[in-house]
Amino acid sequence: MWLLVPNWIIKEIEMNRNFQHLLERKWDEGKFVCGGLDSEFGKIPESARRGGGKHEVHAANTVVAFNREIVEATKDLVCAYKPNAAFYEALGDEGLATLHRTIVDIRIMAPDVPVILDYKRGDIGNTNAGYVKEAFEFLQADAVTIHPYLGQEAMQPFLDCKDKGIFVLCRTSNSGSDEFQGMDVCGDMVPGDYMPLYKYVAHRVTNHWNKNGNCGLVVGATYPGELKEVRGRAFGMPILVPGIGFQQKDVSLEKQVEQVVSAGRYGRDLRMIFNSSRGIIFASNGPDFAEAARRETLKLANLINQYRKGE
Amino acid sequence: MWLLVPNWIIKEIEMNRNFQHLLERKWDEGKFVCGGLDSEFGKIPESARRGGGKHEVHAANTVVAFNREIVEATKDLVCAYKPNAAFYEALGDEGLATLHRTIVDIRIMAPDVPVILDYKRGDIGNTNAGYVKEAFEFLQADAVTIHPYLGQEAMQPFLDCKDKGIFVLCRTSNSGSDEFQGMDVCGDMVPGDYMPLYKYVAHRVTNHWNKNGNCGLVVGATYPGELKEVRGRAFGMPILVPGIGFQQKDVSLEKQVEQVVSAGRYGRDLRMIFNSSRGIIFASNGPDFAEAARRETLKLANLINQYRKGE
Repeated sequence: MWLLVPNWIIKEIEMNRNFQHLLERKWDEGKFVCGGLDSEFGKIPESARRGGGKHEVHAANTVVAFNREIVEATKDLVCAYKPNAAFYEALGDEGLATLHRTIVDIRIMAPDVPVILDYKRGDIGNTNAGYVKEAFEFLQADAVTIHPYLGQEAMQPFLDCKDKGIFVLCRTSNSGSDEFQGMDVCGDMVPGDYMPLYKYVAHRVTNHWNKNGNCGLVVGATYPGELKEVRGRAFGMPILVPGIGFQQKDVSLEKQVEQVVSAGRYGRDLRMIFNSSRGIIFASNGPDFAEAARRETLKLANLINQYRKGE
Repeated sequence: MWLLVPNWIIKEIEMNRNFQHLLERKWDEGKFVCGGLDSEFGKIPESARRGGGKHEVHAANTVVAFNREIVEATKDLVCAYKPNAAFYEALGDEGLATLHRTIVDIRIMAPDVPVILDYKRGDIGNTNAGYVKEAFEFLQADAVTIHPYLGQEAMQPFLDCKDKGIFVLCRTSNSGSDEFQGMDVCGDMVPGDYMPLYKYVAHRVTNHWNKNGNCGLVVGATYPGELKEVRGRAFGMPILVPGIGFQQKDVSLEKQVEQVVSAGRYGRDLRMIFNSSRGIIFASNGPDFAEAARRETLKLANLINQYRKGE
């Protein structure tokens, strides 16, 4: 059945759009998978390639069309989508427009699914205002990821966006993330109370940055031990967990999901966003890539719910 | 006098273009000022505004034309230009193209002046490859700024670019930079040897990240004490010093330059890049903005050389 919705209602819905509400609704529906749209042009299957103008294959059109098929195939299974800006900016001139078109497509095809822009920005205050404008006004993302290194005072333009989600990098999934994140620092709570930097970041974000209740943390799936430590500091704050499925060689997907669910859960709730990128979007290199993406998303979603309810 | 240069020589020059060489040559000429092209559209003087197509004022055209006049007026005085990506990305769709046009303009108008793209990126390895492509292949910058938080292993795609400059954020100029950068960490050299995180970043970059001799550090002019500490760790590594002139309220420009020269010099050499953005490009709001930019650049350049030779 189709409903004719007056324009002012759509406007009201858009104006009241709030990342936290959208996410909570998806979690209530038992959805925890985030579709990582790291849609690197060179990896997109032949069958999804699109032409445009004079060009035989047009990178921007290909990426947009590919993302559209992935979103159409998975939108009822996910709690969020997360395009990573780097893969779009690599397209040069047309990069931002491509990213914009993808976010607008998601807004039209799945208006209730929030978009987390994996952005990893962080500059000083007045400069961040430019990134806030790009991410939220122009690109219309619902949430972003940012770097902690410059501190809360510099990140204020992001933190001031009450209806958006601000995910602060805490413990990243890469193998060398220990170099600084693992260094012991002396916290500001108890003198002599040393803890690794990533844990201190979690403490600062939870207790000082989160005045608008719009913060989250990023902790890689490759570090379940550290995830548990972060959850211990972060209470019920949303944790975005990238690196599911692809960044750990000797651990099966089942084992990884079990570890992450167990380490990161908040009592009976999960309050996590499980991001899988290549494991979903490049699950098949053939013309069945969209069905394969759906199959892998469903597999991951079922695994999460199996371990979630199992305990 | 004009020289007719064969195309293959120009190609050879372009192919051998190396940030470190370009910078050293400028330093040898006694040039240490970096023109910070933080060309925020809203702040550009009325007289520099340009139309375009259907629009009465066209933001991208205005920014490009404004930068061109600034570069023309200052190119014989500076050792580098530093556009900050945020101010361009705030333009949305046309942002990257605007930035690209400005970098190409500098390449044409002042081919011997390197361009440092203030980018402040930092993602995991394979993702950084996208940013490397954007910054160096598409935008053709000579150097970038990056975040240290993810560690050397993640930053390798940047560090692998031997002919480019990679400036790692160390001690940023903002007032709240102490939150993490000032935390004491235990270094990897002497057990129990605690030092602030920013100093440890300087140590790691100097002794581990800099295998290709292409690294530099970013230390704000607002922290001369910390600059001295960093120079003590970084030997002759280039230090990019933003925040000259504008970010410290109670300190005159003369005093600030004197402090920075004294704290950051490397023996008889300076080996620093003094960045001034708003102090140069927005020195006048009138139609004389380009002359005012030249006047302020010259004033800063003279001050630096006065204190450099004074000691």
